[in-house]
Amino acid sequence: MQGDTLLIKSGGAAALTEWQHHLARLMPGLRVYGWDDPFVDARSVKYALVYQPDHGRLARYPRLRLILSAAAGVDHILADPALPADIPIVRMVTDETRERMSDFVAFAALAAVRDMPAIVAAQRDGQWANELTGRLARDTRVSVLGLGELGRAVAARLRANGFRVNGWARTPKALADVRVFAGEAQLDALLAETDILVNLLPDTLATRGILGRKLFARLPAGASLIQVGRGAHLDRQALLDALDSGRLRSAVVDVFDVEPLPPDDALRRHPKILVTPHIASTVSYAARARQVAEVLGAHLRGAPLPFVYDAQRGY
Amino acid sequence: MQGDTLLIKSGGAAALTEWQHHLARLMPGLRVYGWDDPFVDARSVKYALVYQPDHGRLARYPRLRLILSAAAGVDHILADPALPADIPIVRMVTDETRERMSDFVAFAALAAVRDMPAIVAAQRDGQWANELTGRLARDTRVSVLGLGELGRAVAARLRANGFRVNGWARTPKALADVRVFAGEAQLDALLAETDILVNLLPDTLATRGILGRKLFARLPAGASLIQVGRGAHLDRQALLDALDSGRLRSAVVDVFDVEPLPPDDALRRHPKILVTPHIASTVSYAARARQVAEVLGAHLRGAPLPFVYDAQRGY
Repeated sequence: MQGDTLLIKSGGAAALTEWQHHLARLMPGLRVYGWDDPFVDARSVKYALVYQPDHGRLARYPRLRLILSAAAGVDHILADPALPADIPIVRMVTDETRERMSDFVAFAALAAVRDMPAIVAAQRDGQWANELTGRLARDTRVSVLGLGELGRAVAARLRANGFRVNGWARTPKALADVRVFAGEAQLDALLAETDILVNLLPDTLATRGILGRKLFARLPAGASLIQVGRGAHLDRQALLDALDSGRLRSAVVDVFDVEPLPPDDALRRHPKILVTPHIASTVSYAARARQVAEVLGAHLRGAPLPFVYDAQRGY
Repeated sequence: MQGDTLLIKSGGAAALTEWQHHLARLMPGLRVYGWDDPFVDARSVKYALVYQPDHGRLARYPRLRLILSAAAGVDHILADPALPADIPIVRMVTDETRERMSDFVAFAALAAVRDMPAIVAAQRDGQWANELTGRLARDTRVSVLGLGELGRAVAARLRANGFRVNGWARTPKALADVRVFAGEAQLDALLAETDILVNLLPDTLATRGILGRKLFARLPAGASLIQVGRGAHLDRQALLDALDSGRLRSAVVDVFDVEPLPPDDALRRHPKILVTPHIASTVSYAARARQVAEVLGAHLRGAPLPFVYDAQRGY
C-alpha cells in the first residue's frame, strides 16, 4: 500500500479534511488527495472515492484499480460516458447506513400512521386538528420495495415496531416474519396488500419512473408513500395528483431528481407531504472511512470485495 | 346489571352515539345515557364514565358505585371539590393506549435523533438543510420518567429501536434492558445520562412543574424533550428559554395546560419544537368500550378492578 494514492471527490474541502483525518489513522501508508489537487501524479492514483465525478476524469488514471462510490447508489458514476470499463465499482454500504436508513424509515412509517404530514400542516396554519388520531402500527401493512442490504434491515426494524411487513424482490427470498412477493408477476398482489409503500429500489432501467400513475392506482385508497430510493423513481406530477385526489393519504419524500429542492417547489409546502433533505441514510465520515479502509484492505489482500456493483443486476 | 345505568360525559353528542353503539353489543343489559339527558333517574345511576365532570354533579347520584375516567389521568375528576369520597375511580388504560403511546414516543424519539423539528422548520422557510444528519438511535440515551403501564411499554419499544434506555420510578424496579433509577435521590444521576427525556409522569403535587429550569439545567447540553405527560408538568417559559439558549436542542410537545393551543401560541412556530394536538395515546371508541365492559364486568362479579386510582401514590 505504501505510496498508493486515493483520490477523493466527496463533499468538498471541509469533507476532505475529515476523510484525511480518519484515513490517516486507519491506513497510515495511504496517500489521500483531493479531486482537484494540482500536485497529484496521475500515474500514482490506484483508488478513487467519488460522488458525481466530472465526466472523463476517471479515464485519465492509467493505474486506477478500484472506484469507490461515496453513496449507496452508483448512477452518479455510471453517468460518465468515458467511464473506464472493467474497473470494479464498490457501493458505500456500511453498518451505519443500515442503521440510519432503519431509523429513518421507522420514523417515516410511524409519522405516516399518525398522519404527521397533515398535523404539521395544521400546526403551520394555526389549527389544532386533534381529530387526526391515525391508526396503530400493528394494524398497518408496510410493503418494502427492494430487499437488498437496506431493505432487509428496514423490514426487520418495521417488524420490531409491530408493523405487518411485506417485501418485494426480483427473485423469491425467505425473510423472518416478512411476506415476500417476487417479480413483476406478483407486484400487483403486493400493492393490493399495502397501507404504506417504502421505496428502496436501486436505480435501473426497469425501475425508473416506477412510482407513477399505474402503481398508485393499484394501491388501496388512502395508502402512504415513503420515497427513500432514487429521485428518478418518482413521477412527481403523478404523486401530486394522487395526493390531491385522495388516492394517496400522505407521503414522506427524502430524494428528488433535482437537489437541493428549489425553495418554491410544489412538493415543499404540500399539506400531505413531509419533505426531508436527502438525509435518510447519510452516514458519518468516521463510519464511511472505516468502510473505505475495509474495502481497500480486502483489495490489497486479494480478498473478495463487498458490495461490488453488478451491471447485469443493475446494482 | 339489568337496569343499571352508565352516565357518560366524554366527547359530546357524536361520541355518545359511538359509546352506545359499542356498549350495546358488549353489555346488552346496560342502560347508557348522556350526561345532560333530562330523563335519567338520578337513583338509577350506578356508573359514570367522565372527562372533566361539572363540579358537584357526581355527588348527586346516591347509588353511584364506580367512576370511570375517560382518560389515563384522573386530575380532571379530582378537580371537583364535591367529589364523593370512597367511590373508586378507574383510569382508562387499554392495550391500545399502550400501543398508541409506544408508536408515538418511538416516532418522537426518532424525530428527535434526526433533528426533525429543525428540518420541518427549514422546509417551511424554503431551505434545504441537509447538514442536519442527526445521530443514530443506537448511540442515543433515552430516559423515561414514569415506569407505569405506559412507561414500561414505551421503554420496551424504544429498546426495540436500538435506543439505550433509562427509566425513573419512585421505587426501584427490575426491567429487561432498562437501567432503572429510583426516587428523588437518583434523579440527577439519571438526567446526566440523558440525550432524550420522555415525560410520562402522573400529575401529582410532587410532579407539578417538574419540567422546569432546575431539571433542564441538569440535562447534558443539546438534549431533547418529549412531553407526553400532563400540561401541568411543564414550565413553558423555562422550555422556551432552554431551547433559545441551546441547552435543549429540540422538543416534541403533545400536551398543554390550555387546549386547544391558541393559534398564536409561542410554542407553535418555534423552530425547535414539534407540536402535536394531544393525540399521543388517543384510543378508538371500540377499544375504550371494550375496556369499560371489562371493568364493569369485574365490578359486577366482585373481581378486583384494574387501574384503580390510588390517592396515596397519586395515580
